[in-house]
Amino acid sequence: MQAEIVTIGTELLLGEIIDTNSAWIAQQLTTIGLNLYYTTTVGDNLARVADVLRQALQRSDVVITTGGLGPTVDDVTREAVARATDREIALDEDLVEEIACYFARRGYTMTDNNRKQATLPRGATVIHNPVGTAPAFFVEHEGHVLISLPGVPHEMKHLMEAEVLPFLRGRFGLRGIIKSRVLRTCGIGESAIDARIGDLMQLTNPTVGTAAHPGQTDVRITVKADSLAEADALVAPVEAALRERIGEYVFGVDHDVMGDVLAALLVERGLRLAVAETVTTGEIAQWLSRAPRGAEAFAGGTVLPGADALQTSLGVEPELIARYGYPCQEVADAAAEAVRRGHGADLGLAVIGPADPAAPDAPPVFFALALEGRVLHAQSRQGRTGVSGRGWLMHLALDLVRRHVLGLPIE
Amino acid sequence: MQAEIVTIGTELLLGEIIDTNSAWIAQQLTTIGLNLYYTTTVGDNLARVADVLRQALQRSDVVITTGGLGPTVDDVTREAVARATDREIALDEDLVEEIACYFARRGYTMTDNNRKQATLPRGATVIHNPVGTAPAFFVEHEGHVLISLPGVPHEMKHLMEAEVLPFLRGRFGLRGIIKSRVLRTCGIGESAIDARIGDLMQLTNPTVGTAAHPGQTDVRITVKADSLAEADALVAPVEAALRERIGEYVFGVDHDVMGDVLAALLVERGLRLAVAETVTTGEIAQWLSRAPRGAEAFAGGTVLPGADALQTSLGVEPELIARYGYPCQEVADAAAEAVRRGHGADLGLAVIGPADPAAPDAPPVFFALALEGRVLHAQSRQGRTGVSGRGWLMHLALDLVRRHVLGLPIE
Repeated sequence: MQAEIVTIGTELLLGEIIDTNSAWIAQQLTTIGLNLYYTTTVGDNLARVADVLRQALQRSDVVITTGGLGPTVDDVTREAVARATDREIALDEDLVEEIACYFARRGYTMTDNNRKQATLPRGATVIHNPVGTAPAFFVEHEGHVLISLPGVPHEMKHLMEAEVLPFLRGRFGLRGIIKSRVLRTCGIGESAIDARIGDLMQLTNPTVGTAAHPGQTDVRITVKADSLAEADALVAPVEAALRERIGEYVFGVDHDVMGDVLAALLVERGLRLAVAETVTTGEIAQWLSRAPRGAEAFAGGTVLPGADALQTSLGVEPELIARYGYPCQEVADAAAEAVRRGHGADLGLAVIGPADPAAPDAPPVFFALALEGRVLHAQSRQGRTGVSGRGWLMHLALDLVRRHVLGLPIE
Repeated sequence: MQAEIVTIGTELLLGEIIDTNSAWIAQQLTTIGLNLYYTTTVGDNLARVADVLRQALQRSDVVITTGGLGPTVDDVTREAVARATDREIALDEDLVEEIACYFARRGYTMTDNNRKQATLPRGATVIHNPVGTAPAFFVEHEGHVLISLPGVPHEMKHLMEAEVLPFLRGRFGLRGIIKSRVLRTCGIGESAIDARIGDLMQLTNPTVGTAAHPGQTDVRITVKADSLAEADALVAPVEAALRERIGEYVFGVDHDVMGDVLAALLVERGLRLAVAETVTTGEIAQWLSRAPRGAEAFAGGTVLPGADALQTSLGVEPELIARYGYPCQEVADAAAEAVRRGHGADLGLAVIGPADPAAPDAPPVFFALALEGRVLHAQSRQGRTGVSGRGWLMHLALDLVRRHVLGLPIE
């Protein structure tokens, strides 16, 4: 079974927007075992869209289009599908009514342009769109299926999940499913993980693979099965084996992110955390602020442009900085305790580092976690800057807190 | 003149990465007046890549491929180009030497795999790649040109700018250029701009158009000309006319961002700014910290999870919150003054708002800018959340500072 995607829109060919729909649809198709062979982007030109669709229908069992379903003259998808499948275009009275209702519910008046959205290639089946005005549809053509979805990502995603994937499973008797389970780790590198789980990485179903991200390594278990129950049964023992080997580094699963996991953990233990940041420029405060349990777990953050601000903003003794230098562990310790008190928190975390950790001979970044009466330490010499560098430091810093809260050893 | 892009890589078809190269190349092609008609993505499959390239060469004057030039077995671009243009593959001894040098300079040893990167379709012209090991090349085929670039974005971008665009100009005698000048505005909406510059939006060369972003509206002047000098001469009077109408709202040009512009402005005036944030969760501290002049302009930031933290972290009187409520202008004023003193700054900016500005009946977000002895105010009822909402608030907050520093009226 072979699928292809056609994204339609001149704005894509002008580079004004980046096509994120294709990657998302591609991921969904793998979950039902459909292989994607091509994606094509074409502008709002009737003849060219029709040509591309004709070719796609020849070589692929399933063709999914996005875009070009709006009410304006340059929305050509309906017409192009009709042309590529040798049909006429006709007004669908039920659809007119549906769109009129959508507008009425929102207090808008339907225009003649919107009536155009109720035309369809003859014989097409409507896919009802409860989240927008652009109706989607599919046509059957010589044993192949062409599905047209709106280009607006949240509409497209809704229709894919609610309608298209279940339809494709049924239509092509796709009983196999592909399921992934991801263990998200921090504090252990990809090669160290490989060394501990190498034998599990030889398995064929499920397979086990790793992927490195800034400060975080994912271990992905992927299984092919005939049902969700079978998939879960195949995954469970492998997940258990993995957790036995690297469990203490696993901070979350699937789509979990460190900030959310840590905030929930802090709330569970009745603890509140404050953060003082230099190099991470507020990144840690942001992750905690935006976590679902952030309002309860996060006591406040102080973002500091450098050594001077440590004194002015946090009251770190200038003598300390003069004696030990900047950045250093002693200063990080003092900042952690100062921010703990300053925001009235149980725990104070400080990330104190050089302005450019990637500069030659740059000193390390120092982490300190102040508790009532003592301070825990860590260091990073990652030497990365930018988004990736901040991602590293954020993970390492919050993992220090996680390990403390869970009573795990801190190196 | 018609162009098309072919991006090559199974990881794209699995949805593991999003193709950002195509949009970037598309933008570049418009600047030299080449029309992009199609982009196609295909996996690392020799037969399919060759088929796609053969079709592309039939319908387009210029075909640009990205990806598939690495050293491994699944890098099939060289072979596919050879097949699509009926050539053989041959080792290029100069290229072997060049790659060996690249490795030697970095202290690595060249492997046999890397020798594969020195093979090319016979008759291809090498495009030297000083920023990576994957050599690029182009071939001429029946009057059409096929250019193969690496998929790594920074390598591809370097080669496009330094080699491919100048080559295409010369090869196809493209004398026309397209140039854009963008005026970036804050504090005025798209419709208010339209009302002031409607007549200029009727021009045909240059054209003038607007584009709305969170908290920022761009006014873009686009000109077609035979030379850069001619382009500049056509743009200048239009830019002057625009500035006469909306100049006070223009905070920057082209790729300027508000944080950078404001930091430079503060440094120029010898001022330092501190920020207290609730709803923006540290976004403003981040933009200022990362600005090129941020270390001089930014005194420090305090990120607060809510009303309680205002008292604990900033020392805002609980009576004030009890009397006026939260959020409100009085509390924002107190926070602005507290953060100004707390970080030892000249100016203190506070953004105090409800946890969810998009909730029904949510109160507005209050801005306050504390100077020595007085406080300036602003409010936002945008009611947006997420990245877009924070973008709005960041722009409005920093624009309040900009207007103050420049002595512009504050509503």
